[in-house]
Amino acid sequence: MPTLDLATTPLDLPALRDRVDAVLSAFLEKKARAAAEDGHPAVVTAFLRDFLFSGGKRLRPLLCVIGWHAAGGHGTPAPTLRVAASLEMFHAFALVHDDLMDGSDTRRGRPTLHRALAARHRAGRSGASAARLGTNTALLIGDAALVWSDELLHTAGLRPGRLAHVLPLIDAMRTEVMYGQCLDLLATGRPTASTARALAIGRCKTAKYTVERPLHIGAALAGAGPDLRALLSDYALPLGDAFQLRDDLLGVYGDPAVTGKSRLDDLRDGKHTTLVALALARADPTQRRTLRALLGDPGLDERGAGRIRRLLAETGAPAAVEELIRSRCAQAERALDHDAFPPAARTALRELAREAAVRTA
Amino acid sequence: MPTLDLATTPLDLPALRDRVDAVLSAFLEKKARAAAEDGHPAVVTAFLRDFLFSGGKRLRPLLCVIGWHAAGGHGTPAPTLRVAASLEMFHAFALVHDDLMDGSDTRRGRPTLHRALAARHRAGRSGASAARLGTNTALLIGDAALVWSDELLHTAGLRPGRLAHVLPLIDAMRTEVMYGQCLDLLATGRPTASTARALAIGRCKTAKYTVERPLHIGAALAGAGPDLRALLSDYALPLGDAFQLRDDLLGVYGDPAVTGKSRLDDLRDGKHTTLVALALARADPTQRRTLRALLGDPGLDERGAGRIRRLLAETGAPAAVEELIRSRCAQAERALDHDAFPPAARTALRELAREAAVRTA
Repeated sequence: MPTLDLATTPLDLPALRDRVDAVLSAFLEKKARAAAEDGHPAVVTAFLRDFLFSGGKRLRPLLCVIGWHAAGGHGTPAPTLRVAASLEMFHAFALVHDDLMDGSDTRRGRPTLHRALAARHRAGRSGASAARLGTNTALLIGDAALVWSDELLHTAGLRPGRLAHVLPLIDAMRTEVMYGQCLDLLATGRPTASTARALAIGRCKTAKYTVERPLHIGAALAGAGPDLRALLSDYALPLGDAFQLRDDLLGVYGDPAVTGKSRLDDLRDGKHTTLVALALARADPTQRRTLRALLGDPGLDERGAGRIRRLLAETGAPAAVEELIRSRCAQAERALDHDAFPPAARTALRELAREAAVRTA
Repeated sequence: MPTLDLATTPLDLPALRDRVDAVLSAFLEKKARAAAEDGHPAVVTAFLRDFLFSGGKRLRPLLCVIGWHAAGGHGTPAPTLRVAASLEMFHAFALVHDDLMDGSDTRRGRPTLHRALAARHRAGRSGASAARLGTNTALLIGDAALVWSDELLHTAGLRPGRLAHVLPLIDAMRTEVMYGQCLDLLATGRPTASTARALAIGRCKTAKYTVERPLHIGAALAGAGPDLRALLSDYALPLGDAFQLRDDLLGVYGDPAVTGKSRLDDLRDGKHTTLVALALARADPTQRRTLRALLGDPGLDERGAGRIRRLLAETGAPAAVEELIRSRCAQAERALDHDAFPPAARTALRELAREAAVRTA
């Protein structure tokens, strides 16, 4: 009975990651050839390829494939893989625009796309003019990634009825992440003691986008209905919360050599994270005044950041966030205690939950 | 024979424009309600609505509907109208990001979206921080418009097979306009005497995007194949060239009270337009030196712009562009001398070609 075998054979996540990358690579290769034929600039495909292959956990495509298996999908056919790849292409768009909005200098241990493009266009231009061209080209490359994530989806080879089944989930995911980013922007620079608000932002911009929707989309490809999607949400939302909370900690305490990102940006911008909200809620009036003066200071240096880190630690906020992560991951694992998903999918989901709890990048 | 009646009854373009607007308005109304229910910020739908209804010719949706009629479509059913509206939503995305890239202050006679958003978020923030929030929120609202143009398309009520027929054209249009914008960016600040390059940029970012693709998309909705699409291209490409050439002239000589846009931006940025390329090709060495010194000067004022305008006129470039517009529009009209399109569609296309030749905004 091959079906049962497939359901219990562990999913080979590294091999799936390679297959997703192969789809992305072939797609961009084709786009690069078309650009050369049409006299279009090579910079778009070249820099987008560099960006995509400079790192990334491929979490969303993997969750999409696991969602497919959770809903009883067999093997990992080409259309499923291509939809998974389209989620990674969409994520490239989200990251490129996110780095623009945050004015970040580094991502994945390298200059962010707009900085790399500014350097590339430096010759014969003033610094300001090269920086502007870098920003503008990155904006367009982000737009291209969004447009091409659509094209990957439209050309996935799904039966028309199946495509129609998946599109509403894709549309909902995109609207959610845009609102999550917007909530984040509006709260940035004005962090408060409201952990509810911080958690709501993370739910919208990360938990649903990173974990829940990819699982739902993969499951919908295998024909899953609302009941199975609800079971997936019971797992996905607490895990997604944990993922964002870990990100908040890494944004302040992470090792830039490992995360590839600055650990000053969030503090300089004054991001309204759960970590900061908890600290403000627990701080005494003197601590609170100092935190408010330092958080969101665009000139904040490593010394000022060190002061913030000590203050946060004094309030016990980092330990409280660790505790939240532990309980959310445990909640996600408990949500797998049923046999609605085949064993292979369940094992993969359990592994991801354990990794999310302790990841360092 | 009702079919013949429909084919000869003139298309009521103002009424169609209103119907497109009604679709956009209802869509945004629904999005605003959903945002209120989900605790999402109201700023996205409110500012996008203001932007969409502050003006605009609705040229792309109208051409989409005319394309439908040109291919023998009857009436203007709801799915066709909704695809047409999705093109206008996509255009809102393109304009918002375009204004960001150009750093423009005005559009449609009002502050551009990022400027309006900066003003809205000024309270309690520094000017720089409000400007950054304005830019970032506009970037996201542009992204939202792109995502929602997809949603309008996905929920147009097209039969799955018909949707699959149209999606490749939509994907191609989006890739083209992104490359057109990219070519434009890379050439900006470094205009040369190459009219071929200037025309190629306009072909890509305007002629195909504004005229050809909307017609193709509408025709595909009515089941048109490549032959009819080729006939539409014979009309669309010269007309689209003329449209861009008129835009080049209006960007330098237009009346801002009528165009709603600055007539300094293109000169300050040093846009590589056909107008500028022709002037550089025809200028004597002294004129060329002065033009090169003034074009692309970020500090250019109305006096410097006046000098450029006089120099351009001395080379005869504006008159040469007018002549190009006349000949392209005539070419577009000649391309209608056949009876492959029903009379009503042909009449509408002829009218649009005449308007494009002389428009002032």
